[in-house]
Amino acid sequence: MPTDIPADSVGLISPQTATFDEPLPLRSGRTLPSYQLVYETYGTLNADRSNAILICHALSGHHHAAGYHSMDDRKPGWWDACIGPGKVIDTNHYFVVSVNNLGGCHGSTGPTSIDPATGRPYGPDFPIMAVRDWVKSQARLADRLGIERWHAVIGGSLGGMQALRWSIDYPERMRGCAVIAAAPKLSAQNIAFNEVARQAIASDPDFHQGYYMDHDTRPKKGLMLARMLGHITYLSDSAMREKFGRDLRSGTLNFNYDVDFEVESYLRYQGENFSDQFDANTYLLMTKALDYFDPAADHDNDLARCLSQSRCRFLVASFSTDWRFAPDRSEEIVRALVKARRPVSYLEIDAPQGHDAFLFPIPEYVDLIKGFLGSLETGGAA
Amino acid sequence: MPTDIPADSVGLISPQTATFDEPLPLRSGRTLPSYQLVYETYGTLNADRSNAILICHALSGHHHAAGYHSMDDRKPGWWDACIGPGKVIDTNHYFVVSVNNLGGCHGSTGPTSIDPATGRPYGPDFPIMAVRDWVKSQARLADRLGIERWHAVIGGSLGGMQALRWSIDYPERMRGCAVIAAAPKLSAQNIAFNEVARQAIASDPDFHQGYYMDHDTRPKKGLMLARMLGHITYLSDSAMREKFGRDLRSGTLNFNYDVDFEVESYLRYQGENFSDQFDANTYLLMTKALDYFDPAADHDNDLARCLSQSRCRFLVASFSTDWRFAPDRSEEIVRALVKARRPVSYLEIDAPQGHDAFLFPIPEYVDLIKGFLGSLETGGAA
Repeated sequence: MPTDIPADSVGLISPQTATFDEPLPLRSGRTLPSYQLVYETYGTLNADRSNAILICHALSGHHHAAGYHSMDDRKPGWWDACIGPGKVIDTNHYFVVSVNNLGGCHGSTGPTSIDPATGRPYGPDFPIMAVRDWVKSQARLADRLGIERWHAVIGGSLGGMQALRWSIDYPERMRGCAVIAAAPKLSAQNIAFNEVARQAIASDPDFHQGYYMDHDTRPKKGLMLARMLGHITYLSDSAMREKFGRDLRSGTLNFNYDVDFEVESYLRYQGENFSDQFDANTYLLMTKALDYFDPAADHDNDLARCLSQSRCRFLVASFSTDWRFAPDRSEEIVRALVKARRPVSYLEIDAPQGHDAFLFPIPEYVDLIKGFLGSLETGGAA
Repeated sequence: MPTDIPADSVGLISPQTATFDEPLPLRSGRTLPSYQLVYETYGTLNADRSNAILICHALSGHHHAAGYHSMDDRKPGWWDACIGPGKVIDTNHYFVVSVNNLGGCHGSTGPTSIDPATGRPYGPDFPIMAVRDWVKSQARLADRLGIERWHAVIGGSLGGMQALRWSIDYPERMRGCAVIAAAPKLSAQNIAFNEVARQAIASDPDFHQGYYMDHDTRPKKGLMLARMLGHITYLSDSAMREKFGRDLRSGTLNFNYDVDFEVESYLRYQGENFSDQFDANTYLLMTKALDYFDPAADHDNDLARCLSQSRCRFLVASFSTDWRFAPDRSEEIVRALVKARRPVSYLEIDAPQGHDAFLFPIPEYVDLIKGFLGSLETGGAA
């Protein structure tokens, strides 16, 4: 917990809630009759409403991207390293909006919310969201906030996919789009890892086909396994070697099936911690949204044709040791943008952290984003 | 099943059993009072007993490396593509021995065997094997077969680790050592994947702390998850893309939590199939043997010093798309051998299959092994 709030923090933040009564038609063919979005804002919207930046979150993220909810918080928001006064996304200059996505478990309508049709939690009957559904809900929030056009939409990983979708579905509503550590669609290997995670959750006897809330329980073991596996894919092999190597927990091999190595202990801790905080149905939903994302599919699998609808400038960034969405996956986006004659800056950042690198204020990365956001002020739409 | 046995097959094979009453002291400090090894042989031992080759198996392997057990077999042994008359490991020329390792579940003494001390299955009380324990038991089998010196000891993956251990512990008992798609020790990431697999098995309510046989059940779901995860690491990203891409099982997205993509269906099938055939305690034991393997640890982590004990010639082979034990892991072995001034040939084979490539008769790989085995006949020990 912070004894003092650091000077470059956005400080104490209160989440806000927007309720929408207009039904939201979804990609699945289903409709969400009404819903609420929980979000946070940092900084001040300027008079001509031209300084707003939307932050889109990743699989296990949420609206709490920066600052603290109370002086008792152990940690600030998930992207606090990059959002704040004087930071990369400078809240002295920009008005930052960060939303918990629909289907999430941090306050926006999702599987743990009450289904008005039944009076009971949606659970596994909550509709599977597509990235385009999130983007549509975010556009309605922008309407509500009086933001006609974002200065930029920014996201890493699954958040980057939302940023990309914004550029396709709402080309006139943004000057810049930053797609970080993402891919234009999952590979078979990406889907395979998600499927193992889903099977781990579904195999937990406390899962009850997703109706675990009705049984007053939670599939903690399955969620723990899913998170342990996910965590491996967020770190690079070299980062794991650097952090743990083959260090032994007790200095000697046990020759039993308990923890021998530090890395095992770390993964179990991470998994258990996560399983206390996250909803399993949300986890399943988020992995399906990842699997389904494939904007080129509506355009004969021609990503360049798909992206030619966009009207903003692009920043694409990847990280050298990211093997979840490796640099060549980002380069697929860059090549398509170049082919579509859209303005794009691309950099592969040399970073040891693997996929998680997008969360860190790595100097070259900071400079890249700063430069991009600044260039949008002079340039306007391309 | 084979309607006819192919001409280049070793044909119908009967496994043999060797029983050992001399206790086997183990790395763990425990002792196996007596045990049996199940093995197969292909080809004929020559008069001076100089043409014997030992094949060491990997995590889920066994003694049945080539040929068929009956005309009803759907498939031949696991390395049939490389062992047979006229094949890479030519049974017209060599006498090939393939053993099921201790702790396995295919006939050699392991967790499903009866513990003579209790009259009940060992289950989780079967001692954890180290690679050196297997090698010691294999050396006793060699004594029994009258093989003083192997022409070569050959293995891929965990089998390669056994071959390497042979060269350290029994330097005078082999002319050649082929270490294929292996590593001198697991990385933190390798251990992390094994730990997720172990946790998946241990979390299965049918696991019963490993005493599932006493409950007349088996942790099938956990073993299925472990295998699905393992399977992802055996294939390259590109091989999965080639094989499945984003092909949909039913031509359309379901927007539910059933199988959408072919790769999900494939993994589930592989996992279920495996969980019908393999013992969970053996799986746990094998992953621990992998985690523990680190021959340099007894030599101040100096692999070159450790390998300077060897007296044979080495072949080290890796595969370009193997990310489980990537080429740079094989190169660690090669560098240590060079530093120790031991004779070593090394090739990184260009192959799309990932880690599993070691099972396939890839022309460059075939030539490499053939050349190596031939060179041992002219050269003798280095």
